[in-house]
Amino acid sequence: MPHMFDQHLERNSANFAPLSPLSFIERTAEVYPDRLAIVHGSLRQTWGETYARCRQLASSLNRAGIGKNATVAALLPNTPPMVEAHFGVPMAGAVLNAINTRLDPETIAFMLDHGEARAIIVDPEFTGTLAKALAWRKSQAPLLVLTVQDAVYGPAVQDLGGTDYDAFVAEGDAQHAWELPADEWDAIALNYTSGTTGNPKGVVYHHRGAATNAISNVLEWDMPKGAVYLWTLPMFHCNGWCFPWTVAARAGVNVCLRRVEAQAIFDAMREQGVTHYCGAPIVHGMLVNAPDAMKAGVPAGIQAMVAGAAPPASMIEGMEKMGFDLTHVYGLTEVYGPATVCAKHAAWEDLDIGERARLNARQGVRYHLERDVRVLDPATMQPVPQDGETMGEIMFKGNIVMKGYLKNAKATEEAFAGGWFHSGDLAVQYPDGYIKIKDRSKDIIISGGENISSIEVEDVLYRHPAVLAAAVVARPDPKWGETPCAFVELKAGATLTPEDIVAHCKQHLAGFKVPRAVVFGELPKTSTGKIQKFELRKQAGSASAIDV
Amino acid sequence: MPHMFDQHLERNSANFAPLSPLSFIERTAEVYPDRLAIVHGSLRQTWGETYARCRQLASSLNRAGIGKNATVAALLPNTPPMVEAHFGVPMAGAVLNAINTRLDPETIAFMLDHGEARAIIVDPEFTGTLAKALAWRKSQAPLLVLTVQDAVYGPAVQDLGGTDYDAFVAEGDAQHAWELPADEWDAIALNYTSGTTGNPKGVVYHHRGAATNAISNVLEWDMPKGAVYLWTLPMFHCNGWCFPWTVAARAGVNVCLRRVEAQAIFDAMREQGVTHYCGAPIVHGMLVNAPDAMKAGVPAGIQAMVAGAAPPASMIEGMEKMGFDLTHVYGLTEVYGPATVCAKHAAWEDLDIGERARLNARQGVRYHLERDVRVLDPATMQPVPQDGETMGEIMFKGNIVMKGYLKNAKATEEAFAGGWFHSGDLAVQYPDGYIKIKDRSKDIIISGGENISSIEVEDVLYRHPAVLAAAVVARPDPKWGETPCAFVELKAGATLTPEDIVAHCKQHLAGFKVPRAVVFGELPKTSTGKIQKFELRKQAGSASAIDV
Repeated sequence: MPHMFDQHLERNSANFAPLSPLSFIERTAEVYPDRLAIVHGSLRQTWGETYARCRQLASSLNRAGIGKNATVAALLPNTPPMVEAHFGVPMAGAVLNAINTRLDPETIAFMLDHGEARAIIVDPEFTGTLAKALAWRKSQAPLLVLTVQDAVYGPAVQDLGGTDYDAFVAEGDAQHAWELPADEWDAIALNYTSGTTGNPKGVVYHHRGAATNAISNVLEWDMPKGAVYLWTLPMFHCNGWCFPWTVAARAGVNVCLRRVEAQAIFDAMREQGVTHYCGAPIVHGMLVNAPDAMKAGVPAGIQAMVAGAAPPASMIEGMEKMGFDLTHVYGLTEVYGPATVCAKHAAWEDLDIGERARLNARQGVRYHLERDVRVLDPATMQPVPQDGETMGEIMFKGNIVMKGYLKNAKATEEAFAGGWFHSGDLAVQYPDGYIKIKDRSKDIIISGGENISSIEVEDVLYRHPAVLAAAVVARPDPKWGETPCAFVELKAGATLTPEDIVAHCKQHLAGFKVPRAVVFGELPKTSTGKIQKFELRKQAGSASAIDV
Repeated sequence: MPHMFDQHLERNSANFAPLSPLSFIERTAEVYPDRLAIVHGSLRQTWGETYARCRQLASSLNRAGIGKNATVAALLPNTPPMVEAHFGVPMAGAVLNAINTRLDPETIAFMLDHGEARAIIVDPEFTGTLAKALAWRKSQAPLLVLTVQDAVYGPAVQDLGGTDYDAFVAEGDAQHAWELPADEWDAIALNYTSGTTGNPKGVVYHHRGAATNAISNVLEWDMPKGAVYLWTLPMFHCNGWCFPWTVAARAGVNVCLRRVEAQAIFDAMREQGVTHYCGAPIVHGMLVNAPDAMKAGVPAGIQAMVAGAAPPASMIEGMEKMGFDLTHVYGLTEVYGPATVCAKHAAWEDLDIGERARLNARQGVRYHLERDVRVLDPATMQPVPQDGETMGEIMFKGNIVMKGYLKNAKATEEAFAGGWFHSGDLAVQYPDGYIKIKDRSKDIIISGGENISSIEVEDVLYRHPAVLAAAVVARPDPKWGETPCAFVELKAGATLTPEDIVAHCKQHLAGFKVPRAVVFGELPKTSTGKIQKFELRKQAGSASAIDV
């Protein structure tokens, strides 16, 4: 017989509901229907209107036969349809696959095929890219193309002959009786990560995790109701670190932004009363280095969140000078974006800038509603001593960890070996429990906030008939953080210039993945023939590498 | 075969953790070990120390054989051991049963028996009450009595010969490897409600609900990290509306308070920098009506939360004059305390005080992470028209709804009939979706924030040999909100005074439940013999009722 605390006390529809960020927009539209939800160009859309449009989108998707577990891709910048897709697509029971607009058509085609997309919402600016991707696509299954019109951009690059997005929405029922997922473990989003192999891996998010991280964002920032959030961070990165759902939970304002440009950002801050924004260091650096005249009249107290690399002292100082408050977070696609935060302490404020920068450069502690993060010895799965010296691997556990990799049981199993998610990042842990990354164990290059798999670039290099061996490593870059640096060993008798290599890469890779420096010569190898990337990184950091 | 989004993507210990408020204190102690957690008299206890003591308490409980699903009662005012019990008891796997210290010994004994308490933590002030309760107790099972010493109070009323609480804690292991519940649905607390029958019902809370409502409290108040929370609201009421867990989540300060007195409250606000507190209208009224000199130097911007009755215009005005910000919430024990909030709108600020009071008097909309609240016709379970006129019953659904009533499958089933929790409160819903209570369908009297079951008092009245029939209804009271008013029909030839009735009640009831007015005479009845409480309420509200 069950214990008295478990007897006749089961879950039922009165006392149990699936956790889902869809509840956030429903409540906000109910309580604050007239509050502003979206600003874009001259568009002003309330939460009541936005919720109605999301229900219409869900309704139209369902009528088109797109429902539970169907993938709906999005090739969109930070515009209103991207906000709407974060609600309307899962309200249909479907799974949102927001695709990086900077990717090359071949990679986009891979994602559409692998994710089995049934529909794609595309911005006018990326219709040309999509046309090429469709040509690369292997699947013969029908793909519903929904083309957005955006007065802020203008006419589409290419007429795809698809359905007009607004017309599709308009056909839907604004009272559509959508339902929460039957299980909070149901998929809500699919996000491809460049990972460490040539082919991207599809990270699957569930409703429980999306809701949990969205609320963690509120908790870290003490984010008040009605916050005004500027979309400097792409929503195709980890669903904008779950902020579309956070902003809905706060009945806040989504200030859209097609392009990350200093003038547009400062204008939005002044004109829309922006209170919060996120970005890679390059975004914050751009603002810090903007001319003073451009910054005039920007309100003090704006909250900024940075991830992708530790903010240097100069950035922290520059932000302080502008009156901004910078929070350093760290995460990966697999943990819904930020999953640690360098939580600040009052005592730090009295330290000099160098010491403050040193403390703030750490990746910190677990995010609020994440169960745990530790630096573990991957061999023993035991915590390393908290001495700030002993290296181990950053590992996460809890509700802000992906469901797994799509159609990749092996990679999922490896990632979760021993009951922790293995980040692949090597770090130390300090006596105060704060974590600091020391190296990336898997050779990812982070350029302007974008992950570049060195192996993907190497694969392209190897496809050139004159290349014998190739290795790509990160090269420190004052503007981009890192750029890819290629080391190439040519076949005997072959003669190539760096420009030839770059031209070859441009044919097969997105622009930001193309090596910015090319070095010819024999590659250093271990006795077993493995290329010593450690040596190459040292060379790449030195002045001898040749810029192209 | 499962769909690709469900295949090889199961829950595991890396990507799933039970939701529990115990995670909050663990993180706060890890990230902010030196921050102040508890203030009481001259005591200052950090989060590091508090977490260590909670682990010790859990360790000692486990060593005493008190673990999973065992009930640990607490007869404590708002003192440090009560804060600790909210973590240490569930860390042991046990269930906290915080008992209202104002109850009579017989009722306390009922709770100890019904809840099968294995231990009780008792404050020195209530040792006398407990001694009497132990005499009433029917169970022969051993009960571990842990007696608190509190310099703020002084020597215990009575020596119970139990174990000293601090010594018990000190024996425990500060590194105790406690575990989260195996299932987030496991019980965390047991709270008795006077309900509508003579015997209190035991409301069971689970970890998922406790965590969810604790975070909802943060969201409603935009409660920042480091908030300073004053304990004016008893922690034995719905676990202080889940605020012990909320304060831990915010790394805030628990300012303890043995007695709710204006001087002590204003002193705490000035000296401890209090930022937030909760209470029944009587608490706020006491502050509003305090002499101006007592209020001098109290910081502006203090956030106050009120429940139990709608705040009248005079209270709203008085709070504004003090610079306090008042939020009106509504709930019941069954929904973890507050489960609706009268969410304010900027446009209301321009209205006159009468209109603002009218709008703020409404019980409002669902709490942030509650799934739904509606006014439904209990016969059809359909929503009533949102016309501000049609009555229905307030019903809740979602994760902030109890597990059910302990050992009372029938009451649980009735409460959850049709997939909603039936509040028993009758209300209307306005066009803006806001709910307003019109009547209490089940005759609960709310006096000074305490629920009094009219039926419980009637039961006592019926036990007097001279009483033929009795009915108890609420009587409006300027100080207490409501007080019980007894209508008594005597047996033929019997002669009793109101004082006799009161003396009889005092033998069997807690002081606050004793009728403040007694009216003799024949009771109005329906044709089927049912007493017409509606008529009695009208009489109780008139001047003809006689105060005792």
